[in-house]
Amino acid sequence: MNAEIIAVGSELLLGQIANTNAKFISAELADLGINVFYHSVVGDNPKRLESVIKTAQNRSNLLIFTGGLGPTKDDLTKETIATVLGKNLVYDQEAMDHIEMYYKRTGRVMSENNRKQALVLEGSEILPNKHGMAPGMALHEDGLSYILLPGPPKEMQPMFSNFAIPYLSGRLPGKEPIVSRVLRFFGIGESLLEATLQDIIDQQSNPTVAPLAGNHEVTLRLSAKFLDSKIAQEQLDVLEGKIRERVGEFLYGYGNDSLQKAAAEQLKDKKLTVSSAESLTGGWFGKQITDTPGSSEIFKGSVVCYTNEIKEQLLGVSHELLVSEGAVSENCAKQMAEKIRNLTGSDIGISFTGVAGPGPSENKEAGTVFIGLADESGTKVYPLALSGSRTAVRERSVMYGLFYLLSKVKKGQ
Amino acid sequence: MNAEIIAVGSELLLGQIANTNAKFISAELADLGINVFYHSVVGDNPKRLESVIKTAQNRSNLLIFTGGLGPTKDDLTKETIATVLGKNLVYDQEAMDHIEMYYKRTGRVMSENNRKQALVLEGSEILPNKHGMAPGMALHEDGLSYILLPGPPKEMQPMFSNFAIPYLSGRLPGKEPIVSRVLRFFGIGESLLEATLQDIIDQQSNPTVAPLAGNHEVTLRLSAKFLDSKIAQEQLDVLEGKIRERVGEFLYGYGNDSLQKAAAEQLKDKKLTVSSAESLTGGWFGKQITDTPGSSEIFKGSVVCYTNEIKEQLLGVSHELLVSEGAVSENCAKQMAEKIRNLTGSDIGISFTGVAGPGPSENKEAGTVFIGLADESGTKVYPLALSGSRTAVRERSVMYGLFYLLSKVKKGQ
Repeated sequence: MNAEIIAVGSELLLGQIANTNAKFISAELADLGINVFYHSVVGDNPKRLESVIKTAQNRSNLLIFTGGLGPTKDDLTKETIATVLGKNLVYDQEAMDHIEMYYKRTGRVMSENNRKQALVLEGSEILPNKHGMAPGMALHEDGLSYILLPGPPKEMQPMFSNFAIPYLSGRLPGKEPIVSRVLRFFGIGESLLEATLQDIIDQQSNPTVAPLAGNHEVTLRLSAKFLDSKIAQEQLDVLEGKIRERVGEFLYGYGNDSLQKAAAEQLKDKKLTVSSAESLTGGWFGKQITDTPGSSEIFKGSVVCYTNEIKEQLLGVSHELLVSEGAVSENCAKQMAEKIRNLTGSDIGISFTGVAGPGPSENKEAGTVFIGLADESGTKVYPLALSGSRTAVRERSVMYGLFYLLSKVKKGQ
Repeated sequence: MNAEIIAVGSELLLGQIANTNAKFISAELADLGINVFYHSVVGDNPKRLESVIKTAQNRSNLLIFTGGLGPTKDDLTKETIATVLGKNLVYDQEAMDHIEMYYKRTGRVMSENNRKQALVLEGSEILPNKHGMAPGMALHEDGLSYILLPGPPKEMQPMFSNFAIPYLSGRLPGKEPIVSRVLRFFGIGESLLEATLQDIIDQQSNPTVAPLAGNHEVTLRLSAKFLDSKIAQEQLDVLEGKIRERVGEFLYGYGNDSLQKAAAEQLKDKKLTVSSAESLTGGWFGKQITDTPGSSEIFKGSVVCYTNEIKEQLLGVSHELLVSEGAVSENCAKQMAEKIRNLTGSDIGISFTGVAGPGPSENKEAGTVFIGLADESGTKVYPLALSGSRTAVRERSVMYGLFYLLSKVKKGQ
């Protein structure tokens, strides 16, 4: 199967957004062992879209479309495909019910053009949209497969993972599937990780190891190709073991794990609670730890003390300390962590203080950060000197905090 | 001039990176008034690249290539274009000197394959690379223009801005530049906004109006084409006025504005401070309002009261109320907003309580949210019934909070 991903939307051609849908789908197809030979982007123009479809029909046998399924007149992907294939569009009752229900539930007025979203290609399989209104479609016709997906990534991604992948897997001939495992690391840079594992990376051909730098973290993708998926998993286990021996302390999770999810799970397992005192992060740690459902079991709350006044009044940080050493200091981080732990009666108190930037503060450079962790055994403060933009400093502070918390809880210290 | 942007690189087809080069170039071309009708992505494969070039020659007259100019065997953009056009590749002495100097300066050993980067299309104009080694090229042949740019964005972007744009501007007939203005809306859906403005959208040909749904918000791009940019701005003013008359209450900003930036600026202008009491949002509001540098002038801090215990202990919400009406109630939101305002001595207190989901809580459905706003004139609570995932409910709650806050401060109420 040779795939082509066709994005429809003038906003892409105007440079308002990047085609991140093609990136997402391409990575997913690579995992399935399906080659992607082309990406195409075309505007909301039926003539040009028609010619793009015809070109794709001549060079690819899996055509995946994103965008142009919405309610407005500009949205014409399914209409144009229907024209090219000589198919009708028919109303799908389930999709219609779903759209009407959505408006009823939210109490908003449904404008008439929304009905258009329930029109589907005759004979196609419907891919339900759990995060929006326009359903997706899959169709096999004259040896070619067509998959139509909505444009917004938050609708497209779950639809692709939950419905398009099973549809495609069912049509793949019995070739060696690629079994992948993604290891997630934090606290080690890509080049150091790669240098530490260079001989392993070079020696491996099946399974293979590929590093990728992401959002302040690094992942390693291990991929094995065997007809028997049990053998593939065993080979991945062996390889992971070798990697753990060298850089295990930085490995925090797998696949789509995140530091906040891993930390939340560890806290749940150990039946521990945490509270935070946040200065430079402004509430970001609390936001992250409550991303996971059921987080009230592990997170009681936080005091965001953005000004010194609030650090004193709400947390009870000593006035003398704030005057003598400043808010950006090891001792302030220590007090903040201890005070929030006592105030909330949590097992662990975590604190964040520092200079987010762009400019210095208290004569300390942007990127100077102290993270405190207090529990019954005492308090430890981690100093950091981070680089990057204001957002990067804040985000990485939160990630380091989650990583220290996770490491502490894991070790049971 | 109708442009097509062709990205060459298997890493794009494997989903390792998104085609952000196409976004950048498209936005720049839009500003020049050059239409972009297609983006194409093809791998490091000469046969497939050749066919993509031929397709582009038949439908576009400006072909812009990114990627495939590097030193490795995989890099074959200029080689393939040379084949298609029947041109030779020749060594460019200046580029060769530049490459040798780079290695001398950094003290690294130059491998032989780096010489390949100094090969250029015979008869082309060289676009210097100030941030890397491979030079770009521009060529006009048989009525078509070809521009070749390196793949790494930090090399491509300055080369495009400093050398490709002047090259293109010199070839444009005295035609009207496009002047654009993006209006940002919150609190109104794309379809309702479009339905409300349908007659204006349909009647307009210059300036034009194009809606785009983004992350829980909608934007309208107004674009005018006039030789005199002053007339263009005046026409945009008139059109914006018409739009404001109908949906002005939902318009919160322009261009790259965000709700948090707009709210922070309004607070700064009016010299007002805000503090938040956050339950379901877990600290997200605080995180957003502190994204902007200098936010300590307008934001004092917050209490994240994720459990009822903390709502009582740290904020002082009444125990009876939490028992009788629950934490997810209008009165709880009212108390939270008033208490945090008093506790911190801020001008405005804002509160967030609700059910983030996925499941119900206190027998209230996921998406039930109350946002409180307290100031010296009294307290107003806004009830919301939001749909979508846990993340969407939380994110939209924060956005609604920022929007209510912004509207209140703007009106000076």
